[in-house]
Amino acid sequence: MQSLYYGSNLKNLLITISYDGRHFHGWQIQQNALTVQEVFQNSLSKIIGSDFDVKGCSRTDSGVHANMYCISLKIAHPIMPERLKAALNRWLPKSVAVLDCVEVPLDFHARYSCVSKEYIYKIWNNEVRNPFLDGYALHYRYKIDENLLNNAAQSYVGYHDFSSFCTLDRREKGDMRRNVMSFSVKRDGDLVTMKVEADGFLYNMVRIMVGTLLRVQQGKINPDDISTIIEKKDRSFAGPTAQACGLYLNRVNYNL
Amino acid sequence: MQSLYYGSNLKNLLITISYDGRHFHGWQIQQNALTVQEVFQNSLSKIIGSDFDVKGCSRTDSGVHANMYCISLKIAHPIMPERLKAALNRWLPKSVAVLDCVEVPLDFHARYSCVSKEYIYKIWNNEVRNPFLDGYALHYRYKIDENLLNNAAQSYVGYHDFSSFCTLDRREKGDMRRNVMSFSVKRDGDLVTMKVEADGFLYNMVRIMVGTLLRVQQGKINPDDISTIIEKKDRSFAGPTAQACGLYLNRVNYNL
Repeated sequence: MQSLYYGSNLKNLLITISYDGRHFHGWQIQQNALTVQEVFQNSLSKIIGSDFDVKGCSRTDSGVHANMYCISLKIAHPIMPERLKAALNRWLPKSVAVLDCVEVPLDFHARYSCVSKEYIYKIWNNEVRNPFLDGYALHYRYKIDENLLNNAAQSYVGYHDFSSFCTLDRREKGDMRRNVMSFSVKRDGDLVTMKVEADGFLYNMVRIMVGTLLRVQQGKINPDDISTIIEKKDRSFAGPTAQACGLYLNRVNYNL
Repeated sequence: MQSLYYGSNLKNLLITISYDGRHFHGWQIQQNALTVQEVFQNSLSKIIGSDFDVKGCSRTDSGVHANMYCISLKIAHPIMPERLKAALNRWLPKSVAVLDCVEVPLDFHARYSCVSKEYIYKIWNNEVRNPFLDGYALHYRYKIDENLLNNAAQSYVGYHDFSSFCTLDRREKGDMRRNVMSFSVKRDGDLVTMKVEADGFLYNMVRIMVGTLLRVQQGKINPDDISTIIEKKDRSFAGPTAQACGLYLNRVNYNL
């Protein structure tokens, strides 16, 4: 955004998108791999040129989906938000959709203004795979007891140091404490959905929480031991990182 | 099935599958295009060799999906149905799943023993596309009045000559009369689902029925004129053939 001048024309837009993560290596631009940010910025530049500043609400991993992902966009271009929404939907690939585009205060930031996020994790729980959920849900063949896991998951809720639930080699250096507001496990037929809301998430945190619950299902971790695993602050005590394909960023909450 | 002998070992299996039609040019084997029958027979031959006779319950078009598709399979091989199901699920691509495999009388035929079939047609009814339904539902931007269309669709119900609802160049030469038992149009949020059950369907019949209802939605065909269009027995009076991607074979009914 080298030439973007902070004059009276500058505006800040909150853009809400949805995307099919199978097509992307996550949000953040990287060399040699297609990302959502890259296709978003490419489409944007066709419409308003190269003079913009884009901030995403979070990194997401390769293969992770978003029912709702938020972007803040600073532009000096006079385009109306509704027209920008329509134009982006014309330029973007079918795997990405702009759901909303509204003006917000200039100090709004998609990442730092966020007060909480909600993720869901989908599991197809049937002996036989579902051809329509390949890449869209984890396939787990053995019967899941959703009540057992829902009860066990309540140990996640609260303000804890989640070091045990963060991938080691990418462990953030700062504060590892996060406030998990809720965690639920529900069944709808053969589809088991886990839903978690927190004020923030460490790297791979949801996927390790899910992997740990599946270890509980397998009887390899006692439901009561989740609190102990949290207390250990050691990744090696938690379960494996569940596949990316079942994970969806579902909601991003702001005080606006 | 040249060497298949009709001795005491011969058995007939009813195999129920589900498949994601985006990956296939329909069921029936053809040159230079991948079909479900081809991958099914290839997987089958890895398990029991080449000595089998496969019959599908219907042709399906390229891009059409199946929540339930039925196959009758005559084999002399001693494999148990449950083992064959498991083995097929191991060999088949992820876009196809075997849901069931049971022994049936020798005179059972997946196509000719069928008493009725049910198709559903999915429409994503929102100004903005749904990235997760690309190839899985028709995207229709303008608000659909599901009650208007449900009422109009009741004219389809009954025993009629459906020549007006059959693609001309592939029009079957035989009896064009079919008994439509029910046709419903329902909304669940932004997803509109049409469901039709009949004793049989002409080529493209459901897709033309859907296309005609969308013309009713657009005010280009009067809801009361559907009966007249049926009476005309002329394809040119009905609406266009709706896209294949929204169509799912949903149920196949037999008297067993």
